[in-house]
Order: sequence, then C-alpha cells, then structure tokens
Amino acid sequence: MNPSFRLAPLTASLLLTALFSASALAAPQISRLTPPSELFASGNPNPPYIARFLPGQRFDLQATVRLDEGQTLANFEFSVDGKPVQAAAATRSIVTTGLSLPAGTNAAVLNQRAFSLNTPGVHKLTVTATQSDGQRVTAEGNFEIVALQRGGQPVKNVIILLGDGMGATHRTAARIIGRGYAQGKAMSALAMDTAPFTGLVMTSSLDGIVTDSAPGMSNYVTGNKANNNQEGVFPDDTLDAFDNPRVENLAEFLHRTQGKSLGVVTTADVFDATPAAMAVHTSDRGRGTGIVDQFLDDRHLTGLRVLLGGGRKWFLPNGDALKPDGSRAGQALNGSQRDRKSDYLLPADIVAGWGASAGALDPQRDLLQDFRQAGFAYAPDRASLAEAARADRLLGLFAYSNMNVAFDKIAKRRGSSTIVDDYGFPDQPMLDEMASAALQVLSRNKKGFVALIEGASIDKQAHLMDTDRWLLEVIEFDRAVQVAKDFAARHPDTLVIVTADHECSGAAIIGASTRTVDQMRAATATPTAAALRDQQVGTYQASRFPKYTIAADGYPQSTDVDFKMLIGYGANADRYENWLAHPTPTQDSQQPFYKQAPQSSYPANPTLRNAGSGYLVSGQVPGDQAVHTATDVPLSAFGRGARAFTGVMDNTDVFFKIGQAVLGGVR
Amino acid sequence: MNPSFRLAPLTASLLLTALFSASALAAPQISRLTPPSELFASGNPNPPYIARFLPGQRFDLQATVRLDEGQTLANFEFSVDGKPVQAAAATRSIVTTGLSLPAGTNAAVLNQRAFSLNTPGVHKLTVTATQSDGQRVTAEGNFEIVALQRGGQPVKNVIILLGDGMGATHRTAARIIGRGYAQGKAMSALAMDTAPFTGLVMTSSLDGIVTDSAPGMSNYVTGNKANNNQEGVFPDDTLDAFDNPRVENLAEFLHRTQGKSLGVVTTADVFDATPAAMAVHTSDRGRGTGIVDQFLDDRHLTGLRVLLGGGRKWFLPNGDALKPDGSRAGQALNGSQRDRKSDYLLPADIVAGWGASAGALDPQRDLLQDFRQAGFAYAPDRASLAEAARADRLLGLFAYSNMNVAFDKIAKRRGSSTIVDDYGFPDQPMLDEMASAALQVLSRNKKGFVALIEGASIDKQAHLMDTDRWLLEVIEFDRAVQVAKDFAARHPDTLVIVTADHECSGAAIIGASTRTVDQMRAATATPTAAALRDQQVGTYQASRFPKYTIAADGYPQSTDVDFKMLIGYGANADRYENWLAHPTPTQDSQQPFYKQAPQSSYPANPTLRNAGSGYLVSGQVPGDQAVHTATDVPLSAFGRGARAFTGVMDNTDVFFKIGQAVLGGVR
Repeated sequence: MNPSFRLAPLTASLLLTALFSASALAAPQISRLTPPSELFASGNPNPPYIARFLPGQRFDLQATVRLDEGQTLANFEFSVDGKPVQAAAATRSIVTTGLSLPAGTNAAVLNQRAFSLNTPGVHKLTVTATQSDGQRVTAEGNFEIVALQRGGQPVKNVIILLGDGMGATHRTAARIIGRGYAQGKAMSALAMDTAPFTGLVMTSSLDGIVTDSAPGMSNYVTGNKANNNQEGVFPDDTLDAFDNPRVENLAEFLHRTQGKSLGVVTTADVFDATPAAMAVHTSDRGRGTGIVDQFLDDRHLTGLRVLLGGGRKWFLPNGDALKPDGSRAGQALNGSQRDRKSDYLLPADIVAGWGASAGALDPQRDLLQDFRQAGFAYAPDRASLAEAARADRLLGLFAYSNMNVAFDKIAKRRGSSTIVDDYGFPDQPMLDEMASAALQVLSRNKKGFVALIEGASIDKQAHLMDTDRWLLEVIEFDRAVQVAKDFAARHPDTLVIVTADHECSGAAIIGASTRTVDQMRAATATPTAAALRDQQVGTYQASRFPKYTIAADGYPQSTDVDFKMLIGYGANADRYENWLAHPTPTQDSQQPFYKQAPQSSYPANPTLRNAGSGYLVSGQVPGDQAVHTATDVPLSAFGRGARAFTGVMDNTDVFFKIGQAVLGGVR
Repeated sequence: MNPSFRLAPLTASLLLTALFSASALAAPQISRLTPPSELFASGNPNPPYIARFLPGQRFDLQATVRLDEGQTLANFEFSVDGKPVQAAAATRSIVTTGLSLPAGTNAAVLNQRAFSLNTPGVHKLTVTATQSDGQRVTAEGNFEIVALQRGGQPVKNVIILLGDGMGATHRTAARIIGRGYAQGKAMSALAMDTAPFTGLVMTSSLDGIVTDSAPGMSNYVTGNKANNNQEGVFPDDTLDAFDNPRVENLAEFLHRTQGKSLGVVTTADVFDATPAAMAVHTSDRGRGTGIVDQFLDDRHLTGLRVLLGGGRKWFLPNGDALKPDGSRAGQALNGSQRDRKSDYLLPADIVAGWGASAGALDPQRDLLQDFRQAGFAYAPDRASLAEAARADRLLGLFAYSNMNVAFDKIAKRRGSSTIVDDYGFPDQPMLDEMASAALQVLSRNKKGFVALIEGASIDKQAHLMDTDRWLLEVIEFDRAVQVAKDFAARHPDTLVIVTADHECSGAAIIGASTRTVDQMRAATATPTAAALRDQQVGTYQASRFPKYTIAADGYPQSTDVDFKMLIGYGANADRYENWLAHPTPTQDSQQPFYKQAPQSSYPANPTLRNAGSGYLVSGQVPGDQAVHTATDVPLSAFGRGARAFTGVMDNTDVFFKIGQAVLGGVR
C-alpha cells in the first residue's frame, strides 16, 4: 500500500479557513465554492485553475456557507450564467470537528448534484444563500465546457495501461534488462517503445506538486484535479468520505451516453487507488469495504463488466464480532477485512442526483456471491481464468491483498521459489494473461469499452527500493502492453494509452556493477561503506552493457548476473544496499494478514534489510520508503487518435483528448 | 569540465584483443573492421549494430591487421559489394603500447578515407590483406545506406538546442520554479513545453549504457555511435587522437552538399565535448588546442560562421617556455592554455581524403588574430555582441574557460554578487542574447544553416549537485528556446529540436521544504542528520506549491524562498546538504586558472561543501560528483518536420530524421 494516505492532509483551504477563523463573522460568508474556479479567488491564491468538463459531463455544484451564530440557513440558489439551476438541490449542516473549518463553526453545505451543460465556453456560476435573519450572501465562480470538434472517425474502445510510478528511468531500465543493449543500441524495443506517439505528462495533484496514486489516476479520468487521497471528487468541508462533490468519470460518462463497458485489471488489491479511481468517488482512498461494494452496486453507472486483481479479503463476509466503533474485533477466520468503518452509505441527494446505490454498512455481506448473482463469472486463479472469460461479466480475485509480484510469480512457475505458495495463492496469473481475458470479455460489447490495465507494483516495489522486483514488474507490464497493442491492431477503432500516474522513487540508472555475483556475495566483510561502494559501482563506460538471459517465459533467467545494472534512488529513504536480489518479498502487504510473516527472518524494511550484508545509504527523505516525485512521466499512444498524445500535457488534458477521440472523433 | 574523460577506457574490443593475445598467430588476422558492423561478428559479441549513413555521407573504411612476426604488409584492398574501392588508400604501422592491442604486436592499420555511396540498402564491405610471405586474410562486414523519401518540402535551417544533462526532472523543476504551480497546474508553460511534438531519446554510447557528452552529441550529428570521450569518429587501435576513422557530421555534409553554414553557441568553453562534436573529429575530447584550431582551420569543411562561448584561453598565443614533453611549463601570463600536447597534426591520408587542414603543433599561434583575419568579427563581451553580429562571421569568447552560470550572471546584473567580477569577465551575455546574435548572423546565408545552442552548465552544476545553479541554467536555456521558437515562426523552413545528450545526476523532485528560509539558516545546530532531514523535507501534499517571484529579468528574485522546492539525486556522490543556495560558485572551472580560487574559503567539493551547516547524504556512486545516468531524455520539436520527432528513438535516429527533413523534405 502507498504510504501517502497515512500523511495528514494539508491544503490551501486549510490555511485559508484558518484566516477566516481569526475574525468573528458579522454576516454569512461563503468560504468554498465548487467546482474550483479562477473567479472565486478567495479559495485560489493563484488564479490559473478553472474546472473543465466535457459537454454533457455531470458534476456537482457545492458551496460552504458559514452562518452567524444562532442563525440557520433559510434558502439558497445556484445559477449558471444568470439562470437558476432548476433541478432539486440539497443542503445539510456539517460536522466541524477536525477538518477544514474551525471546530464549532455554524456552517451549511449547499449542493446541486449531477449538473451538466452542453454549451462550450466559460460559464459563470453564482450561489446565493440567505440565513434565517434574512441576511444574504452571494459568491461567483466559473467553469469551462470544453468544445469538441465533431465529425471525425470515433474511437470505440479506450485502453489505458497504467504503470504505477513508472517514470522514464523505469522504462529505460526495463529495456536494458529485458531487451539487452550492445554497442550503444537496444537489441530490440519494448512493446511500449513501439508506440508511434509519445508525450510528457505533468502529474501534480490539487494540493501539491507531488501526487499520490488517487488523484494521479482520477485526474486522467475526470479531467479535473483531485486532492491527494481523493478520487472522482473535489474537496469539501465535511468528514464524510463519500459525500464530496462528484465529477462524472470517463467510464460513467461513456456508459451513460454510449453504453460502453468498463474493465478494471490490476496486480494490486482492487480497492487500491488506481483501480478505484476508474469507478468510485471518495475523499478517502483507504475505504476498502465501501470501494469494492460500489464496484458492484454502481455497475449500472460505470458499466463494470470486468474486475481482475487482488483484494479478495474485501469480498468475503465478515461474520465475526465487531468492536463498538465498527472496526473488526479480530482477524476473521475466512480472511475477510470487511468492516463498518471502511464501508459506505451515501447521502440522499447523491442517490437522487446521480442514481447511485445508497449503500449499507454491512460487513457481513457476501460480495463474492453478490457478484456471481449479478452474472459475473468468478475466477479464483489462473487455471479458471480462461473458462470464466467466456462469460459476459468477469470477476477474478487472485490474492487476499495485492497479488504477488512478477519476480516471485515467475520464480514459482520455474519451481525455484516457495514465496507464492507461502502467500497462499499458488496459481496467480501474470498481467498479460489478465489483460487478454479482460479484452476478450470487454470486446463482446458492440458499443465499446473503457479498460484500465495497471502494473501496480512497479510503484510498490520502487517505494521499497527493491530494484530487481520493480524491474520485473515493468517487464510484466510491457507484456500486457503487447496484448493491448495486438488488440488494437485487430480492432483499429481502439485507442491505447500507456503512461504512469507519477514517478516513484527518483530511480536513476547509475551504471553497472564491476563485480561478479560471487564477488558481490562475498563482499560482506569489506571494511567501510564507501570502500564497498567504490569497488562495486561502475559508471560511464565502466558500466559496459549488462547482459541478462531472457528465458522462454519472457523474463530474465536471473537478475543476479555478473556486472548487473545498478539503480540509485533520488527520493530515497535510508536503506542498506548490497546490490543483490532480495530472496524474500520486501512488502508487508505481500503477506496475508492472518499469517505470521516469514520476513521476520529477513527484514522487509529497507532501513533494516541487508543491514548484515550491505552498507547504509542515507535517505534524502523521511520515513522508511522511497517517495513519489513531481517529475513529468512519459506517455505512449497507439491506435486511432494516438497522434493527439504528443507534446507536454497536463494529466487532466489526457481526459479531454480521449473525449475528443471518442465523442468528436479523429480526423 | 566533465569528470568522465578522466576515466580509463574499457571497451569490448579491449576484451576481445586480450583473447587474441593469448594465442600465437599462425597467419595474419583482421582484429578490427570499421565501420562497426553486424557481419563482422568477432568485434561484436551481440549482433544488432550496423553502421548507418545517409546517401552520399562520407566515412572512413578501416581495418587493423595483425601480422606474423617478421612480416610486413604487402598490399590490401577494400571492396564494397564485391567491387574494389577505387580511390587512394593508406596504411601505416601502429604503436601498440598501452592501447587496445598487446604491446609489441606487429600490426598495420589500413585506411580508405572519405568513402561514400548513394545506393540505399545494406552493403557488404570486404577487406583483403596480404603479408610479405604471401599469406592473405579476408574479413567481411556490412553497413547500411538509409533510404530517403524524396520530393517533400525541404527544411532549410536546423537549430539544435541542447540542454546538457537535462532529463525530465530538470525540465519539470524549471517549470515549477520559473512558471509556478497552483492547484495542481502549471501557471504557464516553458517555451520548450509548447513544442507540438515530443519524443524520448535513448542515449547510450558505443562502449557503455551511460554516455558522456562527447558521443552524447556526436551520435546526434553523425548518425552513428561513438565511444565515450570520442566525437565524430569510430574507435581504432592507435594512440593518435586525431587519426581515427571519421564520419562526416551534419554540418560538414550539409555544407559540402548544400552550402549551409554552421553556428556553435555554448555557455561552456568552446572546446568542450558538445560544441566540439558539431565540427571536430577526435578520440580525445580533452585536446583543447587542436580542437579550437580545427574550428578555424576546417571551416571550409564545416561552414563555421558563428562560434560563441567561453574558452578564450585556447585562442591566446602561448609564448612561454614549454616543457620537453610539450606541456606548458607554467601558467602563461596572458592566460593561454595552448600547448603542443593538446594540439593536432593530421596524417596525410586524412588531409588527402577529406581535404582537411594538416594542422601544426603551434602553441604560439594567435588564434584570435587568425579568426579576425578570416573575417570573423570578435566580441569579447556582451556590450560588443550586437555590433559584432552585423558581420557575416562572428566569434565571441566571453571567459577564459566555461562562462559563469546564470545564477551568478544574473546576480551580477542585479548588483548583488561580485562572483562574475571576481572571475574577471564582468559583462557576459546570457544564452538567449548569444542565440539571438548567432541566428542574426547565420540567417544571412540564403542556403541555410545548422546551429547548436547549448545550455552547458545544466550538466556541470548537476554534477556538483548545486541545485539552485542548475535550475537557473535550465531557465536560461529555455529563454534561448524561446528565441529559436520565435525565429522558426518567422522562418517556417526551420526545424528546431530541443533535447539533451543524456541525463545528469538522477535528479528527483522530492517535494519542498516545510521550513522558512530563516528556520533553515538557523538549523545548523540540530543534533542529528536524520532529525534535520525529517524536519525539513516535506513530501506529497506537504510539498504544496513552492512559490517563487520572477523578476523583470525573467529569473527568480531568489531561490531561497520559504518552503522551497527540494531536489534529491539518484546518481549522487557524497555531499553535505543544507538545502540553501550556495553563496559562491561550486565549480573549479568557474575560476580562472591563473587566479587563486576564492573557494578556499568555501569548499567547492560537494563532499566538503556545507559540512558546517548541513548533514551528510551518502553517495550512491564513487567520486566527488554526481554522474550521468542511462535514462532516456525528452526531446521537443518545433517547426517544419517536427512531427517526425515523436515516439521512442535512438539518438542516432535523430540524425536520419534531420537528414530526411533537409534532404528529402517534409510531406
């Protein structure tokens, strides 16, 4: 799991409302107007931001009104370009403990759900609120409806391949190890290298230059910026994780307007930020029970037909006793992690406005059974995947939490490691196998589909600075790119985008070892860290061309080769480094929660790992994992409409380019 | 200066010839055939490499023949596709001490200079050699002439803007500081961000995954891979730095065939690898005297009309006594660094084959005067640049060695620093001013031009992990991009390429300081390194949006702002870090060699710098500077033909794309 959502939120609006709290109110004030807007300057210390939407795309209007003491809200009205918004509106008082308004604030949140507009251009949004003594307050904002060029050839299918955390270095390094270099040239190209168009994507989130994976994905599929930890929503002033102002995402919009299906494929737990951002709206990416429930409950909104990945723990009924606060009292015997605290229940105005399911706090729910009853064939392992893919709807849950990584899955298939068996899921598919099954199911919808195929553990293993493991994740991911590329070749009305949500770890190819594996293994007794480093790390031409043997299964026979490629980290936490592949997985979440982790014999934490055999490299960031960086990430595009995806673009621009290709078409 | 050329060469051919030396020869053997070739497998442990040339582009054929003891070479012949090469050929015995053949080897190097072929396709190269006892040996290789699509609209002018060492992080970081971000979006775009097409470039050199700047540039302008430290040549088996097999470079080819001019603009010493690779052929990028002499002596080959940068020390006559080995006996009073050891003298076959000037070992040469006599107007400073740019030929030498960096030049202009004055060159132009002057001169040639505009110290300051200084270098470079972009808008037959030769330092945007500048300045007494780091480094949303004020001159008022952006390094040497701008320059070469360096009061070396105020960050590479990495670099393209520059490409591919645009035209 990503460390970022354990960080405390620190937003511009928090600073702003701190200013507000210093002065007593003499009249009602509007302290937030959503969507974020360049006109509503008080929430925007810098003016470039304007929310943008496709014609007809739905989004919520919201305002926070701070009332004078003892007053209540009498009425309110949103209007756009001077015309009152006609549809039903909702309001509620808000809890003011601990979030972005000072404790005890008398405030109301005003909502107009699921608004949309077809007319391109910049529109003025006005909100007027009246408190019980008759005092009125008005605020103005704006938003833009982006114009489409009509009449081109439409794209029918959109496949987004998302290498989580995959920057330029991860791509280059995978090419060096997976394809080989000689005399300065790559022996062959990665599948993603063969895309005819490439761009660079700016990845920042609404509240910081460095995004986490929630806005990192959400921004691509909503066209708007979200805060860190949030997906499919704008920030608000309430504590409820499921009541934020929503933005209709790509799958919802194209299912509603064109009947397209949604497929979500990941090597992570399916509740993880990236897959969830394809379908779900929440300000807390950690709400596992609610997120997976919504995958099913709101399939009529998203068109979900395929869900493949890890995370079975959320689908199993938790019949065990729960604590009074709703959290689990202990570890459920069946491995369920469902609990009330992470479940969802929607406010009535969202249910009414969006047609969303209301939800229920039901840890005892058998979600696996509910998926089956909704017509989903279920594949618990690779062996059953091909048969299940003959159905029109497909669910595959191949691990309790995140799936094992390619390094360990391949070692299991070769009979050289028991890690996958120890984890309890001996027959997990590779990402390309999952991608093939997903596209097989999705392509049956004649109206087309939107698919996410995520290489999730590129990021997770980069966080851990477990070089050998993220390298194989990129190779696994690239094999899924090949599957999508082949699909697009057979279905020329398909657009394929290969990109990342952000860079992770500041990875850098510093050269190659000047030592053999045997020498490196024997190096533990070397006196000083600097001496050991200086003996082992070859730079410039001393790096030569590291040579790996690729086995018939497409993966390196071993990553511990003589003179192996070496990776440094610019966004590193402390670690001990011995440059050798780590024999056991180094990620806590690779271990089923109800098992004693075997890593007690081999520390998972980079600040301890290799302490006996390596030397300490001091970290440039706090904590015990490498972090995300703000660096632009590469994007590669295949198929119809691909040519729009070159140049430097914001991640929100990608949404509008896809919208143009699908709705307006490609000339 | 780049540290890489102090490293010992270690090539595949060295390993190969070591194998040869183990067995006694029973017959002559051909141990190297040039150009490098997929057919000649003995020198190519992996077979993907094939030398590629444009139709009509000139290159040398060369073979090394090892003869039996007591034998001499009787005769030899090169043939292509079975037809003997008709032109004059040359041979010479080689010195075998210390290079790639075992000492005492009886060998000859066979040359056929300046060969060319117009017929596209793969051609077979055969060399046959006979030794004095009549024994013959034959070897076969191959090369490719790349086909051009004819009949498009030709590109007349080619401008290459080269941000030395500029990876994706350097670009993103310059955008954050120079344009500002708010609410997840860039307030505006860098000039280079506005290019309609972007690609990713693979940068490896012929002898390692990590290139230095010599092949980094040479590969772009020859279409072939060079070894580290080498430019415009293939490797050979001799010690002579100026006799290697040559490849005609872009400027030479387009001057010879189309009469185009060459302009070279850099913030480095003009002998540095990147500018030299535009014009010069040598296996030793360090041969300063010879390199600058060739700029002038071979202007009839390159069409050189503009040369702007630092490096005046090579242009001044050295009348002082020289040591017997030809090196300088002391520091010349006028600052000259000319000496015989770094000068050039070409073998007769290169002079004959290429029409090159023979050269002379002449440290006493007044090269400045020779440039003037050849019609070059000379600008010693910014004040004289505009007037000098009215001439048809322009030389500007604004420092003895590398020019001062933007950080210090701007501080001088603002009157807030004496560093530029102390260096002795108080009135140096910025890169955009140099670029404007160069384009003004070059555009007078109706047949067009090739221009290099290099931001050299992005790399040099990244090596030193002097964050604030490389940041301003990127901003300075981007202002030169704007100049080129504006030029291309006025001259639509211009192609502009913005890229890098390699990434330097593994830079990573890790977030922003959570402290004010005052807090950071006061932080020196903090007890432990980890505690200091943990207090100062904000990641994810704690990084927020660092705010810099851009002054009227286009540069940040200060880089030491509260909550400043922080950079980590993945290819780092040891350093002490206090996250504050360094008050004095941290590069030895910023100091004129004949002055006592004032940095004795402030250590230049990152392993000592800030030792009193910062904490130690342990390096991931040996040495005292950050190193280059193998990561793909972004490329941006404007103007006619720009659309060819998207996708993932090798740096040698760039040459052929330019060739297509200029020679074949753009459809």
